[in-house]
Amino acid sequence: MVAPFRPSSRSAAESRLIDSWFAQGSHLRGAEHVRDWLSGMSRHAWMETTRAGLDELPGWTRDPETGFLRHHTGRFFGVEAVTVDHVGAAVPHWQQPIINQPEIGILGILVREIDGVLHCLIQAKQEPGNPGGGLQLSPTVQATRSNYTGVHKGRAIPYLEYFREPLGRRVLVDIRQSEQGAWFYRKRNRNMVVEAGDDVEAIDGFGWLTLRQLAELLSVPDLVNMDTRTVLACLPGGGAYWADAVAANGGFLTALARSADPAAPSVHTTDEVLSWITEARTRTELRVEKRALRGLEGWQERNGVISHHSGRFFSVVGVHVSAGGREVGAWSQPMIEPAGTGVIAFLVREIDGVLHVLTHARTEPGYADVVELAPTVQCAPENYAVLPDSARPRFLAEVLRSDRVRFDTVLSEEGGRFLGAQNRYLIVESDVDVARDDPEYRWLTLAQYDELLRHSFYVNIQARSLVLCLRSLAVV
Amino acid sequence: MVAPFRPSSRSAAESRLIDSWFAQGSHLRGAEHVRDWLSGMSRHAWMETTRAGLDELPGWTRDPETGFLRHHTGRFFGVEAVTVDHVGAAVPHWQQPIINQPEIGILGILVREIDGVLHCLIQAKQEPGNPGGGLQLSPTVQATRSNYTGVHKGRAIPYLEYFREPLGRRVLVDIRQSEQGAWFYRKRNRNMVVEAGDDVEAIDGFGWLTLRQLAELLSVPDLVNMDTRTVLACLPGGGAYWADAVAANGGFLTALARSADPAAPSVHTTDEVLSWITEARTRTELRVEKRALRGLEGWQERNGVISHHSGRFFSVVGVHVSAGGREVGAWSQPMIEPAGTGVIAFLVREIDGVLHVLTHARTEPGYADVVELAPTVQCAPENYAVLPDSARPRFLAEVLRSDRVRFDTVLSEEGGRFLGAQNRYLIVESDVDVARDDPEYRWLTLAQYDELLRHSFYVNIQARSLVLCLRSLAVV
Repeated sequence: MVAPFRPSSRSAAESRLIDSWFAQGSHLRGAEHVRDWLSGMSRHAWMETTRAGLDELPGWTRDPETGFLRHHTGRFFGVEAVTVDHVGAAVPHWQQPIINQPEIGILGILVREIDGVLHCLIQAKQEPGNPGGGLQLSPTVQATRSNYTGVHKGRAIPYLEYFREPLGRRVLVDIRQSEQGAWFYRKRNRNMVVEAGDDVEAIDGFGWLTLRQLAELLSVPDLVNMDTRTVLACLPGGGAYWADAVAANGGFLTALARSADPAAPSVHTTDEVLSWITEARTRTELRVEKRALRGLEGWQERNGVISHHSGRFFSVVGVHVSAGGREVGAWSQPMIEPAGTGVIAFLVREIDGVLHVLTHARTEPGYADVVELAPTVQCAPENYAVLPDSARPRFLAEVLRSDRVRFDTVLSEEGGRFLGAQNRYLIVESDVDVARDDPEYRWLTLAQYDELLRHSFYVNIQARSLVLCLRSLAVV
Repeated sequence: MVAPFRPSSRSAAESRLIDSWFAQGSHLRGAEHVRDWLSGMSRHAWMETTRAGLDELPGWTRDPETGFLRHHTGRFFGVEAVTVDHVGAAVPHWQQPIINQPEIGILGILVREIDGVLHCLIQAKQEPGNPGGGLQLSPTVQATRSNYTGVHKGRAIPYLEYFREPLGRRVLVDIRQSEQGAWFYRKRNRNMVVEAGDDVEAIDGFGWLTLRQLAELLSVPDLVNMDTRTVLACLPGGGAYWADAVAANGGFLTALARSADPAAPSVHTTDEVLSWITEARTRTELRVEKRALRGLEGWQERNGVISHHSGRFFSVVGVHVSAGGREVGAWSQPMIEPAGTGVIAFLVREIDGVLHVLTHARTEPGYADVVELAPTVQCAPENYAVLPDSARPRFLAEVLRSDRVRFDTVLSEEGGRFLGAQNRYLIVESDVDVARDDPEYRWLTLAQYDELLRHSFYVNIQARSLVLCLRSLAVV
């Protein structure tokens, strides 16, 4: 056991990140100000999404053999289908449609110092799938390769050059991460945070926010979009310095602060956690094979919509989109529309004075590497009406009945691919325990999440959102 | 910049690993003793490998449609084929046979304390492809799932239980790593080191060796097998404590010792290295698609051998194997037989008093994630006679003409799949430099390799061997 170690002074880089978490920003002070900014913008911007049959989408064709939906350029994404065999699982076999988007897109946030504090350049952006069609706080750049190689025939993407040519710039985050493995086939995006010089200004539709402001805004429903959440979750945690900056005097906040400190005791060493992941990825027998989208077991296609016979899970639908204001245009596309609101929850518990998160080793058909670390609970509760009892997620009851709720906000998923996809994100204190060698669950600290987040495909997108929400509790 | 930090005393676990590197073992002292042990064993063990046509292998069939070679059980491995498109590369398109072995095997070394020093349980093992048919120093367990689920109908695998049920034991290494991406399609093995209690004895054919002894034996041609090398390379490095234990008084050894110390200065931070890997994996456009083994562009099948028209690269051949002694049996199988001896080299250079390794971001068709970190040079020089000049590897000339050679030994690759596959492993000092932002090369320290080796698929199998060889220079 290495003795706790804390250098006497934090570096300039660390200071700036931590100040951005804990100092107030100079621009757009407070959630009220941000809401004014957004409502001012939404008076000039509108987006209209109307439903259409999958065979009525201009620019999209069906492959005559497989029934796969593709853009006529062969770019962007396609709707395909897979057969899944998961040996020994509660549901050991199923078929489903899945989105294939093989291009690695960029999710990039530009940062710069303003009055000595790091600010993030956030875009107020509409997407067709956003609940209520509203503006959400999005990364500076959110672009697929098709976007920026001109297939869109749209205007140039502002600030893209900072992320396409990062060499010579200060790069704070640069890591590929997965997205929803239940809906995407091996989708990966490059999560980036790059620092700009003082001469960079926010153009119309963009604003500078500190990490503290973004943390405060996380508790506003459907406001901070999924892509912003994943990028911010990948920022270096700041370790012991971040812990020192938390204004805690005992109780939950003290345990949370200690959780971010790599020198604080943890239930398992990080090497034990890595070995557990290796074991899970080796043990799990998952076979995912492409098959035709037509004639999928359990699914029907009617009136241009592909849906499950049960009405549960999700549907593949078509939409026509028209937008005015800053982003002008009209297009059509397929989208995934989930049935019902999901529950995504961390159960947390103080162990030896350090907050630990109960983490699930979860298998999804679209993961690049079989298993990723997921929230304690991640499910759409209503789906279990049509699934065997043994499939019912562990700890769902604990989450829903706990009276020690630290975070509870409905946030939405990427509105460019998902229509009205909302999840209730929860952080709940609990006294539950699991066996030390439970094959599926482990207690992790925030510092351990920080270490894993430097690498690809360990922490799933839902857990990344919750890591950010957990961290935000220190400043709100 | 974090100030150099060294806790005042090393932990018991660290001490034992470091003692195993630097203290003499109590059993099988010195290379002479090990050679006596092996020659004693080889009097009782023999293995005969004779060539056979691919269509004359009992138990193996050709798929009528694809021509893929498969075992009749559907287990073990198959010989398949791929079409490779690598946009912008010197050779942008080719086809080739490739081995598909989707099962994750176990490469496990059991360790225990003897007289207070950690020893590794090494198996003297023959494989049909070993040059000269000789015994090599192999891990305690080297098993595919087909091996240990009884498809082989062989005897139980000794010591397997330590690796199949590691829970509750002390696990020093547990990480999946790739193997040759030019010959294997996404092969991964689980590299493990597990500690046993004092009651575990070496049965016939097994012996206890310290890390120091294994390091000394690395300079014996074709002795320490590939699987032992990769597992030992994944052992925790020991950082500053290991560095302290090196008996260095200036010069190369001092620079090597400092290279293992995470607090010593490095040319790039580890986050910069990770960002460079992300960039390489995002930028590289590699498409690898399965296709029929028959009618491959550039390849011919004659007399039961599949070979390249040029006679270069490799051939797919069949063998009959019969073995006597400890391992009794007879079987037939296809193997890959490379043409010529390869050159696998680290160029190393002292920078600010710290030894750095010039590391290449290499693409191979069989990698799970497009790019891995490879030696400075990794090639079969004779192949370049039939390839464009632009394909000639950078730094090969520097390696071959240097007079500051620190390591130079021919070692062989896995003799269970490769027939007589030998590479000349070199570590060479050089004053070469590369631009700081060269897209393909970076200078890394040993401590940075140690950090990356805790995770899967960063460091390729050839570089893992050389990391071990480099470390061995501190004790020989």
